[in-house]
Amino acid sequence: MDILKLIVDTDIGSDIDDALCLAYLLQQPQCEILGITTCSSEPEKRAEIVDSICQYVGREFPIFPGLGAPILGKQLQVAVHQYDVVEQFPHRKQFPSNQAIAFMKEMIEANPHEITLLPIGPLTNIGALFAAYPHLVPLVKEVSFMGGSFFDEAVAFMPVEWNIKNDPVAAKIVFDSGVPIRVAGLDVTLRLKIQCTDFINASCAKVLEPVVAYARKFLERTNDMYFHDPLVAAFLFEEDICSFKRGFVHTDIGCDWGRTYFTEDVNGNVLVADKIDPDCFFRHYYEVIDKQEA
Amino acid sequence: MDILKLIVDTDIGSDIDDALCLAYLLQQPQCEILGITTCSSEPEKRAEIVDSICQYVGREFPIFPGLGAPILGKQLQVAVHQYDVVEQFPHRKQFPSNQAIAFMKEMIEANPHEITLLPIGPLTNIGALFAAYPHLVPLVKEVSFMGGSFFDEAVAFMPVEWNIKNDPVAAKIVFDSGVPIRVAGLDVTLRLKIQCTDFINASCAKVLEPVVAYARKFLERTNDMYFHDPLVAAFLFEEDICSFKRGFVHTDIGCDWGRTYFTEDVNGNVLVADKIDPDCFFRHYYEVIDKQEA
Amino acid sequence: MDILKLIVDTDIGSDIDDALCLAYLLQQPQCEILGITTCSSEPEKRAEIVDSICQYVGREFPIFPGLGAPILGKQLQVAVHQYDVVEQFPHRKQFPSNQAIAFMKEMIEANPHEITLLPIGPLTNIGALFAAYPHLVPLVKEVSFMGGSFFDEAVAFMPVEWNIKNDPVAAKIVFDSGVPIRVAGLDVTLRLKIQCTDFINASCAKVLEPVVAYARKFLERTNDMYFHDPLVAAFLFEEDICSFKRGFVHTDIGCDWGRTYFTEDVNGNVLVADKIDPDCFFRHYYEVIDKQEA
Amino acid sequence: MDILKLIVDTDIGSDIDDALCLAYLLQQPQCEILGITTCSSEPEKRAEIVDSICQYVGREFPIFPGLGAPILGKQLQVAVHQYDVVEQFPHRKQFPSNQAIAFMKEMIEANPHEITLLPIGPLTNIGALFAAYPHLVPLVKEVSFMGGSFFDEAVAFMPVEWNIKNDPVAAKIVFDSGVPIRVAGLDVTLRLKIQCTDFINASCAKVLEPVVAYARKFLERTNDMYFHDPLVAAFLFEEDICSFKRGFVHTDIGCDWGRTYFTEDVNGNVLVADKIDPDCFFRHYYEVIDKQEA
Repeated sequence: MDILKLIVDTDIGSDIDDALCLAYLLQQPQCEILGITTCSSEPEKRAEIVDSICQYVGREFPIFPGLGAPILGKQLQVAVHQYDVVEQFPHRKQFPSNQAIAFMKEMIEANPHEITLLPIGPLTNIGALFAAYPHLVPLVKEVSFMGGSFFDEAVAFMPVEWNIKNDPVAAKIVFDSGVPIRVAGLDVTLRLKIQCTDFINASCAKVLEPVVAYARKFLERTNDMYFHDPLVAAFLFEEDICSFKRGFVHTDIGCDWGRTYFTEDVNGNVLVADKIDPDCFFRHYYEVIDKQEA
Repeated sequence: MDILKLIVDTDIGSDIDDALCLAYLLQQPQCEILGITTCSSEPEKRAEIVDSICQYVGREFPIFPGLGAPILGKQLQVAVHQYDVVEQFPHRKQFPSNQAIAFMKEMIEANPHEITLLPIGPLTNIGALFAAYPHLVPLVKEVSFMGGSFFDEAVAFMPVEWNIKNDPVAAKIVFDSGVPIRVAGLDVTLRLKIQCTDFINASCAKVLEPVVAYARKFLERTNDMYFHDPLVAAFLFEEDICSFKRGFVHTDIGCDWGRTYFTEDVNGNVLVADKIDPDCFFRHYYEVIDKQEA
Repeated sequence: MDILKLIVDTDIGSDIDDALCLAYLLQQPQCEILGITTCSSEPEKRAEIVDSICQYVGREFPIFPGLGAPILGKQLQVAVHQYDVVEQFPHRKQFPSNQAIAFMKEMIEANPHEITLLPIGPLTNIGALFAAYPHLVPLVKEVSFMGGSFFDEAVAFMPVEWNIKNDPVAAKIVFDSGVPIRVAGLDVTLRLKIQCTDFINASCAKVLEPVVAYARKFLERTNDMYFHDPLVAAFLFEEDICSFKRGFVHTDIGCDWGRTYFTEDVNGNVLVADKIDPDCFFRHYYEVIDKQEA
Repeated sequence: MDILKLIVDTDIGSDIDDALCLAYLLQQPQCEILGITTCSSEPEKRAEIVDSICQYVGREFPIFPGLGAPILGKQLQVAVHQYDVVEQFPHRKQFPSNQAIAFMKEMIEANPHEITLLPIGPLTNIGALFAAYPHLVPLVKEVSFMGGSFFDEAVAFMPVEWNIKNDPVAAKIVFDSGVPIRVAGLDVTLRLKIQCTDFINASCAKVLEPVVAYARKFLERTNDMYFHDPLVAAFLFEEDICSFKRGFVHTDIGCDWGRTYFTEDVNGNVLVADKIDPDCFFRHYYEVIDKQEA
C-alpha cells in the first residue's frame, strides 16, 4: 500500500467542508501529512482551528499560517466565523510567522516528485510558491484541489466559483505552470450535498466531534452542507468516485475575473472531474472515518 | 429546395479564401445573396474586388463598404494586396458610403427570421449592427462564420485566430448576443489546405478565372492555400462535411485578447465544428463550381 | 447669443439628478433641445418620465427610448424607482421603438459640427452610435457627460463610478473615438450636495414641481441629493463653474472593469473638470431656473 | 555622508544601460551593494556579465541568478546578445541556483527599513518576492526603478514600455503593494540619449573599459544609447537631476497589457519623475565615474 505524502493548505473556518476534509485525512491510513498551511484572511486563527481538530485525535503536525491576502485584487473572504468555537478544544495558539512558503519549499526539495499539494481554499500560497520558486514545479507530484467550474450550465450561468474568485492570479499561475493537476469544479462538488442537521445528528466518530461543533456554528448561516473539499482528498485514494477529462484550463483575469474555461487536450496538464458518483463518495468517506475508530 | 437568403460580409483582398468563398456562393443555386458588405481596412477597395468577381459571371448585387476599423483596438490588417489586380476586370468603383449597417438592418427587418449572415472576416460590421440594434438579434436566422480556434492543441499552442484577433469586442458582442451561430475554428479549417499553384493550374470554371488572377497575386506571399471561408458557406448546404458540438463560446478581451473558449452545453447558442471530412468538402465545392458551368 | 443644439440622453428615473438636469435645460434659453433619448433598463418607462416633466412646462420634444442593456456585461441598474410617480403628470405613453440610434444619426448628419451630445447616464447609446457609424464622430461638436473619477483619492479608493461601470465598453468606445469631450467625474460632482428635503421645501419654480414629486419618491432611498448631471449641462453655459485639464482618458475593461484613468496631454481629446466652485454652480442653476419663471 | 544599502536586480546583457548603471554604482561611494540578482531569460549568463564588470575593478559581490521567465505571460526578451563578449574578461561561471529570492528575503529581514531595491529590468524577482513574502513590504526602504511611461504623448502614442511589458503582473504586484517607489518612465529616460560611438571613443575610466566592450557588441544593433537605468541609480544620490510627482500607478493587465497610468495623489506610494535635467544627469554621472579613478 503506497503512502501519499501530502501538504494540506486550507482556509478552514469559513465554509465547513475544510473541517470535513481534514477529519477524513486524519483517518486515511494511506496518507502521510507532512504539514498544514493556512490561507485567506486571518490565517493564524485558521491555524488554531486546524490544530484543535488534530489535537482532539492526538495528532500533531507542523502548522504554518500562510498568506492572508490574495496576490492581486481584494480580499473577499474576511470573516473566520467558526473561530468562535475554537476555545472549546485544546489547541496551540502560536505558530511560526511568515514561514509557510519556506516550509513548502523545503519539503518539496527534500521529497522530489513525491509530494501532493492539497489546497482546499484560494490558491494564494501555491501560486506565490510557484511564482517565487518555479524550479519547484517539476518537483511536485501533483496538485489536487477544488476550484472553478467547467461543464454545462455551470460556466455560462453560475457565479464565479469562490476559491478561484478569491485569487484568480494565483489560480492562473498554478494552472499555467504545467504542474500535474487534478481538480473538481463547483459543477461537480455541488452534487455532494447533505443537510447539516443530519450530519450533526448522525456523527459519532471521535474525529468528527470537533467538526460537529464547528458545524453547529456553520448551521447559523445555512443548513446546506456541501462536501466540496473532501472530494478532492477522497478521489486521490478511491478512483471510482470520479471520472476525469484531460486538458488545459484557462483562468480569466480580465473582465470575467476568476472564471475558468476547460479545453480537452491529450497533452493537457489538468485532469478535471466531469462525472461523479455521490453514493460511492459518501460510502468511501464514512468507511474511512469509521474504520479507523476501531 | 429551400433557398437560403444570405448577406455576405467579407474582407476579401487580403487572404485568398474570401474569393474562393464568393465564387462558390455565386454558383450555389440554393442561396439568394441579398447583398454584400465589406469590412477591415479600406473597405471600398474590397468592394471593388467583390464586384470584379461578380461582374465576371454576369451577376450584380448591392455592395456596401462597411466599417474600416475594429470597434476597439488597433487595425492589424492594413494592406489589400490583391487590389493590385482588380483593374484586370471590369467593376464598379463607386459604392454608397456609410450605409452597410443600415442596409443589413433594413434587410433583416424586411425578412425576419429568414436571413443568414455570413461574415468571413473580422466581425466588426455584425458586432456594430448588434450593438446599435439589439432588437435585430432575434430576427436573424443564423450567423455562420469562420473564426476562433476551439479544440485540442489549437487553444493552448496556436496563435490567436486572425478574424477574432482583429476585433475581439465585436466577436464578443456576437457570441454573447445569443444569436444562433454556426462557426468553424482555425483548428478545423487548417485541414482544408491545397497548394495555390495546383489550384491555379487546375481551375477552368469561368467563375474561378478572376479568382485565379487574385490567387497569382496571393502566390507572391505563400503557396499554402486554405479554404477557411468556403467551409462556412459549404456546410450550410452540405451537412456531411462537418459535425458540430453545441455550447457557449467565451471571447477573451483581456490579456488573452481575442482567444476563444468553448464549453459544451445543450442550451448553448453556438454550434462549433469539431470534425471535418476534407474529401467531402472538396468534392462538394468543385461539384457546385462545375455543375453550374454546364 | 449662440444657441447650443443639444441631444440629451438620460437614464432618468433611477437617481434624481437627471430630472434636475432636464429642468435646468428646459429653462436654459441658450440651448435648443433637438430630441431626448433614454438609456439603461426599461428605457420606455424613462421616456414617459421625461415627457411628464416637459409637458408640465408646455414643451414637447422628439423622445426615443434607446438601448436597454449595456453593449457588453451585465445590466446593473434594473429598477426605475421614480416611475411610480409618473401617473401624477400627463405624458405620452407611446414612443417610436428602436429608433434612438437612427434619430441621433440623422440629426448629426443634418447638423454637422453643431450638435452637442449630452449623455447623463451609461454611455450605451453613444457608444453604439459611434460603433455603428464612426463617420459621425468628426461631425459631433462635443460630448459632455458625467462619468468616471479622475483625481486624488477618487481613483485609488472610491468604488468605480456608476455610469461607466454600467457600460465600460461603451465608455471606452466614446473616450477612444477622439471626439471632443468635456467630462466631470464623481470626484468633482460629489461636491454638489444638498439635502433632498431642503430642495423639496425650497422649490417653487414651476419647472421644478414635477421634479419635486420625483424627489419625494427618491427621498425614500436617501436624503443626499447630488447635482451630478446638472453640472455637465451648466458648465456648457457658465464657464466660471469649473476649470478643466486637457488629456486622454483610459477606460479599463479588464479586472478593474469601468475604472478610468486620466493622463494630461495637450493633444488630448478630453477636458476633465478638476476644480469646481459649488457656490457659482448653485447660483447659476437657480438663476436659470428662476429667471425663466418671470 | 549616509551610505545607501542596495540590492541591484538587473537584466544586463540585452540593452546596454544596465552595464552603464552598474559601472556607476561601482564608483558611487555613497552606496553599499549587498548583492546583485539577475532577471529575464538566461539569468545565469547575465550573472556572468555582472561579475565580469565587477571583477575588472576588483570588486566581488554575492550574485544570484533569479527568475528566468515572467510570473505570467510570455518571455519576450530571449537573447543575451552581449554574452558573446563575456569571455574577454575574467569572471565566475558558477552561481548559487534558485536562491535569488531567498537572498533578498534574508537581506531585508536582516536590515529592516534600510535596503533600497534597485530593479533595472522586468520586475519579476521583486514581484515574486512580494507575492511570497508580503511581510517584507513594510521592511523595504524603497524600490527605485525604470519602467512604464506616464506623461503626455508617452501614454497615448508610445508602445508599452519594455520592462513592464515583460512582466505586467509582477509590476502590478509591486505598484499595488504600497511599498515606497521612485520610478522614471520611458517618457523621461528617452531624454538621456547619446551616440554609442561617442561613448566608446570618449570613455577612459577603468570601470568603463568592459562596458565599452559590451557597448561595441551593442553597437551592432543600434548607435542610439539611452541612459535609462543609470538615471534611477543617480537620482538616489543627486536630487537635482529630477523632479517628481507623488501619486498612485495603475498597471493594466488586461487588453492594454503592461500599460501604466499615473494619478497624482498626496497619499500615493509612488514618486514618478516628471521633469529631468539631462545636463545635470550627465555631469553627475561622469563626475562619479571619474572622481573614483583618482
